[in-house]
Amino acid sequence: MRYSFASSFFARASDLIRSNSSFPKLLILAAISGGGVVAYADTEPTEAPTKQLNKNTRAKKKVVVLGTGWGGTSFLKDLDGNLYDIQIISPRNYFAFTPLLPSVTCGTVDARSIVEPIRKIVKKKDGDVTFWEAECYKIDPVNKRIHCQSSVETNVDGNRELVVDYDLLVIAMGAQVNTFGTPGVKEHCHFLKEIEDAQRVRRSVVDCFERASIPNFSEEDKKRNLHFIVIGAGPTGIEFAAELHDFIHQDLAKLYPKLQDLVKISIISSSEHILNSFDQRISLFAEDKFQRDGIEVQAGFRAVEVTDKSIRMINKASKEEVSVPYGMALWSTGIQMRPVIFDLMNQIGQGKRRVLATDEWLRVQGCEDVYALGDCAAISQRKIMDDILAIFKITDKDNSQTVSVKEIQDVLGDICELYPQVVLYLKSHHMKDFFDLLEIKDNSLELHIEEFQKALANVDSEVKSLPATAQVAAQQGAYLASCFNRMNDTKSLEGPVRIGESGHHQFHPFQYKHFGQFAPLGGDKTAAQLPGDWISIGYGSQWLWYSVYASKQVSWRTRVAVVSDWSRRYIFGRDSSRI
Amino acid sequence: MRYSFASSFFARASDLIRSNSSFPKLLILAAISGGGVVAYADTEPTEAPTKQLNKNTRAKKKVVVLGTGWGGTSFLKDLDGNLYDIQIISPRNYFAFTPLLPSVTCGTVDARSIVEPIRKIVKKKDGDVTFWEAECYKIDPVNKRIHCQSSVETNVDGNRELVVDYDLLVIAMGAQVNTFGTPGVKEHCHFLKEIEDAQRVRRSVVDCFERASIPNFSEEDKKRNLHFIVIGAGPTGIEFAAELHDFIHQDLAKLYPKLQDLVKISIISSSEHILNSFDQRISLFAEDKFQRDGIEVQAGFRAVEVTDKSIRMINKASKEEVSVPYGMALWSTGIQMRPVIFDLMNQIGQGKRRVLATDEWLRVQGCEDVYALGDCAAISQRKIMDDILAIFKITDKDNSQTVSVKEIQDVLGDICELYPQVVLYLKSHHMKDFFDLLEIKDNSLELHIEEFQKALANVDSEVKSLPATAQVAAQQGAYLASCFNRMNDTKSLEGPVRIGESGHHQFHPFQYKHFGQFAPLGGDKTAAQLPGDWISIGYGSQWLWYSVYASKQVSWRTRVAVVSDWSRRYIFGRDSSRI
Repeated sequence: MRYSFASSFFARASDLIRSNSSFPKLLILAAISGGGVVAYADTEPTEAPTKQLNKNTRAKKKVVVLGTGWGGTSFLKDLDGNLYDIQIISPRNYFAFTPLLPSVTCGTVDARSIVEPIRKIVKKKDGDVTFWEAECYKIDPVNKRIHCQSSVETNVDGNRELVVDYDLLVIAMGAQVNTFGTPGVKEHCHFLKEIEDAQRVRRSVVDCFERASIPNFSEEDKKRNLHFIVIGAGPTGIEFAAELHDFIHQDLAKLYPKLQDLVKISIISSSEHILNSFDQRISLFAEDKFQRDGIEVQAGFRAVEVTDKSIRMINKASKEEVSVPYGMALWSTGIQMRPVIFDLMNQIGQGKRRVLATDEWLRVQGCEDVYALGDCAAISQRKIMDDILAIFKITDKDNSQTVSVKEIQDVLGDICELYPQVVLYLKSHHMKDFFDLLEIKDNSLELHIEEFQKALANVDSEVKSLPATAQVAAQQGAYLASCFNRMNDTKSLEGPVRIGESGHHQFHPFQYKHFGQFAPLGGDKTAAQLPGDWISIGYGSQWLWYSVYASKQVSWRTRVAVVSDWSRRYIFGRDSSRI
Repeated sequence: MRYSFASSFFARASDLIRSNSSFPKLLILAAISGGGVVAYADTEPTEAPTKQLNKNTRAKKKVVVLGTGWGGTSFLKDLDGNLYDIQIISPRNYFAFTPLLPSVTCGTVDARSIVEPIRKIVKKKDGDVTFWEAECYKIDPVNKRIHCQSSVETNVDGNRELVVDYDLLVIAMGAQVNTFGTPGVKEHCHFLKEIEDAQRVRRSVVDCFERASIPNFSEEDKKRNLHFIVIGAGPTGIEFAAELHDFIHQDLAKLYPKLQDLVKISIISSSEHILNSFDQRISLFAEDKFQRDGIEVQAGFRAVEVTDKSIRMINKASKEEVSVPYGMALWSTGIQMRPVIFDLMNQIGQGKRRVLATDEWLRVQGCEDVYALGDCAAISQRKIMDDILAIFKITDKDNSQTVSVKEIQDVLGDICELYPQVVLYLKSHHMKDFFDLLEIKDNSLELHIEEFQKALANVDSEVKSLPATAQVAAQQGAYLASCFNRMNDTKSLEGPVRIGESGHHQFHPFQYKHFGQFAPLGGDKTAAQLPGDWISIGYGSQWLWYSVYASKQVSWRTRVAVVSDWSRRYIFGRDSSRI
């Protein structure tokens, strides 16, 4: 789950403009608290669970949730505890606010300030909720059963295995780091996915400075020890590089004055520009700022081997090889599925895919009663050309073999909902509406199947998979909870028409709303890419970042902790003790 | 270093009453800060370094300080950086406020809130100060050289060894846990001496609860897992038991409601009463409170073997053996010298002692230019009966073979300074003054050597070694720094007369002032034993404890951090995430 997380802050602001139905309780408090500034925003769960909806006496279905990350926690927060027996299984008994992990690496924010025990989050729920600290290593969708191993060392003789049956399974286990099979990465590089990773990175940075202080070392060895390399120029890598630069120049330079000139930070980027998921204006600004800061960007290089002392990389264009000595390296290039997910995929006929596929309702394709969300799965977007005949048939209500404007208008909403690529295509081709696409200028015109097909032929090129961000996982969790809360109410079918079948789907498909993305660049400057091509770079966005991240904290405890960590950093700097 | 640390708070209060010379800047601020209460007291180093005293051009002497605990840090804070080349060597690049370690075990205070980088502490000094993160494994007093091993993993080929020469060596390495050779302790018990220990204890406590939540376990196994045993009933063990009780009943009980009734906390005490270094009123109060809290005290037992599942202990009176199953055990019974100190002792003819001996000026006996303070050494108090002839000779100025009241009065101050047991003896025998002891009722009386010797015969029974507390080490550090700062000024001889020799000592011997001791007992109740037999137990002492501990923090950063941790705990409770 990457840091590129924005918030319902924007959603609410725009909701407010559009509907004016619920006024968001936004508070920006500025109070001298221990000498610092407190700024936070009150948040409520976006969808209140429909409590007391179904208090019948029959045995409740058992929902097993795997994972306590963004997806799982967001699902749990909104799920109605009265309707289900809820069983949570995760190797971590806490939720971690992962977008702040880069801040933990340099002590700007304390590790404990961004975690909240999952039991505390679910404690407020009615009904039966149990949590077991264990790791699922096998999913058996045929017998509706999962196999786990307890993650605490037990003294009990025999195995540490747990077998759990489920009625409904929600997989929200996230993904693992992808090393692309590069030799030496697992042994020598740091990652930044878990709290423990961030703590290790922190110790390692301080270690590099302590090591370079030892008089045994030659100047060259000291320089190597103080060369920090980030492999991967996505938001996590860039934010870490920026944080590290601030940590070194604002804090460590004072404590290790003789070493300051020996420090070097490099970023190895396989693409030509850093932050290439952002608007180019942000990329260029970031590159410019990094150049001024002395952070070197090695663009167009791919790391091919990591040893204990150096990284070998290859220029993708010229095929030239370079070997760079380093002191600490952070690997942050991408993610891949966990082995347990690959195993499930093999069982359900998805063996040839790279990512677990779900449909638009987050149901895993190829098995029953299994849902997946967040980084561990991807929605397999149906192609409009695969269904073109069925779509035409549904549209052509009077069976005239042609479709009229009136007929198209009747199903237009359903089509746009089931095939969001249509809307994206219109947007990217600057078309006004669907009739623009079908080249219908006259309301009396009717289209044959060939014309219909031809007009839509290129639409599928706009099919996009969702980014692996906290924002997506959190929205999917909330969406799935709202479906689960109304699952027994099978009479109201609010979803779109079933293509190739009769009737309607029970629910609307999941729709992702992008609320924007932040890229902190250090020196209290943050780049923000907001919806509607709105770009903001500088101190203002930094304060927006503070407000949004504080408001999105999962509890008041972590909110106060994070804000007071920020204040303390402003006043006292970061701590460099090696713990 | 145990927690039994009180503060110059009392010293200053009493100074104020006595001298009224310097008004202490005591602030008790109560401000709503993040919803909490801030209470702190401003502190200044008790002895300002005598700067600009010696700015001559000859090469400065090199002082090597081993250790960054209470003793070393207190010494460094007060040492004049203009007078010496200062080289600090320690495996930890930070100072830790160890009296709060028990609070860290339960998350009342965060680990990072009680540490401060040593570089930050010495940064403010004038002159040359270097710090190397390394562990000394051999002291060579003949060649004035120490051998260390760098504690950071280095990639440099060859050895990690460092050899450092010194002109003056200050050993402040502390001690290590004493297991008394009990089998299984090192493998299965937790200790509480370092920050890492406290963090491990914390994870282990949460682990026990997570383990007991796993359904595989029988009721009996769950009970065993939730049995927390503290071996040793000194202040550290007692405070940990009290903290743990609060953590479990105030926080964990809400998150693990089904487990609350299975939890048990036991204390194994080898003596008949817990906290036996305290006044008996405090011991009894603590025992009574613990009984009401359900904390079981096994008094008069000695642990003889620890296995992974149980602790075998023996009743010291009845010799009866009991085996108790447990989930987590904390070993907190005492300390012993580190191997490097034992090695030094063998080199300098102290091989038969249990503790490194120094004289009253903290100089290690048997070698030149080596000083030791804190837990790693003990002042070897000279016996009055060993020196009785020399004392008589010095007193008998007119060589009349008898000593008069006038003659005694002339040397009385020196005698009391060199033999503090005299004062302790007078106090414990309720005597008014020294003449009471000598049974001189008439001012014209003169004493022969036999009478003099007989009167003082039992005084040495009051020789006491100093407790292994932060308070002692901190005072010794400050004392030694003030000696070092004036070492070149050999003209003024302020110390007492040299017994058996001519002239005076350069400095007064080290004198320990006991400012009191705290024993937090949980539930916001603390017992305080203050000088002058003043006992205070309850909420008031808890607030005194807060004020003193906040005021004694080594920096404003840690002060604010600790106070805001306390406030957060009041508002939000303790965090139980397993990180």
